[in-house]
Amino acid sequence: MSLLTVGTVAFDTLYTPHGDAEMVVGGSSQYSSYAASYFTDDINLVSIIGDDFPQSELDDLQSRGVSLDGLKTVAGGKSFFWAGRYLDNMNDRVTITTDLNVLADFDPVLPDSYKQSKYILLGNLTPDIQISVINQLTEKPKLVVLDTMNFWIDNTYDKLIEAIKLCDVLTINDEEARMLSGEHSLVLAAAKIFELGPKYLIIKKGEHGCLLFDRNSVFFAPALPLEKVVDPTGAGDCFAGGFLGYIAKTEDTSFENMKRAIIYGSALASFVVEDFSNYRVKSLTEQEIKDRVQQFVDLTHFQL
Amino acid sequence: MSLLTVGTVAFDTLYTPHGDAEMVVGGSSQYSSYAASYFTDDINLVSIIGDDFPQSELDDLQSRGVSLDGLKTVAGGKSFFWAGRYLDNMNDRVTITTDLNVLADFDPVLPDSYKQSKYILLGNLTPDIQISVINQLTEKPKLVVLDTMNFWIDNTYDKLIEAIKLCDVLTINDEEARMLSGEHSLVLAAAKIFELGPKYLIIKKGEHGCLLFDRNSVFFAPALPLEKVVDPTGAGDCFAGGFLGYIAKTEDTSFENMKRAIIYGSALASFVVEDFSNYRVKSLTEQEIKDRVQQFVDLTHFQL
Repeated sequence: MSLLTVGTVAFDTLYTPHGDAEMVVGGSSQYSSYAASYFTDDINLVSIIGDDFPQSELDDLQSRGVSLDGLKTVAGGKSFFWAGRYLDNMNDRVTITTDLNVLADFDPVLPDSYKQSKYILLGNLTPDIQISVINQLTEKPKLVVLDTMNFWIDNTYDKLIEAIKLCDVLTINDEEARMLSGEHSLVLAAAKIFELGPKYLIIKKGEHGCLLFDRNSVFFAPALPLEKVVDPTGAGDCFAGGFLGYIAKTEDTSFENMKRAIIYGSALASFVVEDFSNYRVKSLTEQEIKDRVQQFVDLTHFQL
Repeated sequence: MSLLTVGTVAFDTLYTPHGDAEMVVGGSSQYSSYAASYFTDDINLVSIIGDDFPQSELDDLQSRGVSLDGLKTVAGGKSFFWAGRYLDNMNDRVTITTDLNVLADFDPVLPDSYKQSKYILLGNLTPDIQISVINQLTEKPKLVVLDTMNFWIDNTYDKLIEAIKLCDVLTINDEEARMLSGEHSLVLAAAKIFELGPKYLIIKKGEHGCLLFDRNSVFFAPALPLEKVVDPTGAGDCFAGGFLGYIAKTEDTSFENMKRAIIYGSALASFVVEDFSNYRVKSLTEQEIKDRVQQFVDLTHFQL
C-alpha cells in the first residue's frame, strides 16, 4: 500500500569523535524512504531541493521504488544544509549551521498520484506544512504518523497542537514528551498527550530504545547495543520509515503488529548509525535485516 | 540454598521533589535481604549497626528468614547514615551527608554457620571487606555477585581489581562501566571487563533498565515505566537481592535462568521505588510479584 513521506532531502556536514563527513546526503524523507523501501516499493516522497543535489542520488531513490513526482527542484536554489557536532556520548549533538535555503519557501503541492496515499509520514517540519499535506489528501488515510521536535513545541505551539489532532501516531523523544505534557513520568506524559488526539505515542530515547503506548498498553524496544556508532544522523528517520513501511506492507494497524513494526524500525535505525550518511541503509539484504531482527528477539525474550 | 549478603544496614534521610523522609531505615544488605526473602528463607546477613537501630526492624528481617548472626551491634555506636537529595529527574542524586559511624571500623567476621553459603552478594563496600568475606568461606560458592561504584574505581583501583577477580557477576552502572573499561560502547566495555575475570556483567542504567552480558550473549531488561517514583533509594540493592534470590531458589546459573533472575530483580526494584524506605518491599504478596513479572513479559515480548 502506498506510503507518503514528507520531509527534507538535504546535505549534512557531521563532526563526530570518530571522524567527520562533509556535505554528505541526508534529510528526513530521504532516510525514511530508504528504510521503508525494504517493505514496500510504493513510496511517494514529498520534499524540495536545489539544483545542487546529485542526480545519481535521485536515481538511487527511484531504483528503490521511491516516486519523486512530489520532489520539487528549485532552479538556481541550494538544498537544505545542516552541520552539527556529536558529543562524546554520541547521543547529544550541537547544531553548528542550519541553512534552510530552498526549504524556507517550501509549500508542498501533492501530485494527483499521491492524493490517495494510505500511510502518511509527516517528517519533522513546520506544523503548517504537516497540516497542508493532510488537507490535500482526497481519501482518508489508514495511518498518519507525525514526527516533531522541541523547536515546534517552543515556537509554534498552537499550530503543532492542531497538527497533532490530525495524526494517529505521534513520535517524539522523552524530553519533548515531558515538555509537551508537563509531566516527568512518561506514563503520565502519555496519558496527557492522548488528550491531544493521537491514538498511539512513540517516545524515542535514543540509545536507550523507545516506548510505544496506546491508551491501555505499553511496549518497550531497546536500541541494539552496538560496538561502534559512527553517525547517529538519520536514526530516527530510518526508525520511522521502517516502522511505517512494515505497517504499509502488512496493512495491519493493530497494537500487536505495531510492536513488530517498532522492532523492524529499530533494526533499520541500528544499521544507519553504522556508517555516515545513507551508505549503510542503501543496500541492505533481506537476510541482514532478518538477522538483525533476530538479534532483537535474542536481546529481549525470556521464558518464565 | 543459602544466600549471604554483606553490605550496610543504615539510616537514610531523603529529599525528593515529591516529599522528604527523615532517618528512615535503609542500607544495601537490608534492601537486598528483603528482596531475596521472596525466593529463599535461608539468608545470611553480614553488616554492622550501632545500638540506635530499632529492634522492631531487626525482628522484621528475622521474620523473613534473615539470619542476623553476622550482624554486629556496637554498644554506644551510631549506625551508618546517608542523606541525599534526588533531582527532578529522580535518576540523579546529590549526597548531603555521609556519616560512616560504626561502618568506619567494619571488619566482618563470618559466623561458622555462614561459611558454607552458596550464593554471595558482595554489596557496595570497600574492596578489602569484599575480599575478606570471600576468603572466610570454607567451601567454594556457586555464584559470587559483586556490586561496586565509581568511588572505589577512583580511590582503591588495585584492590577493586583484586576483588573483581574473585567474583562471577559484576554489577555496575553504565558510567562506571565506561570508567572501568575506558570504552564508551557498552559492548566494548563488557569485553574489556571480562578480561578482569568475571564471567557475567550486569550494567545498570537506572530508569533505562539493565544489560546482562556473558562473553557470547547479551540480554536487556527495561525498567518498568511507572506513574510515580517516590524514592529510588534501594532500587539497585533490591534488584541485586531479587536477582540472586531467584538464582538461589532455582539453583541454576545458566544464562537463560539469569535472564529470568534479571526480570525478578527488576520487578523487586520496581516495587521499592513506589514508596520511601522499605515500606513497599517488606510485605509483598506472591501474586503481586507474579503480576509485576507478567507486566515485564507484556512490556517486552512480541511475535514475529
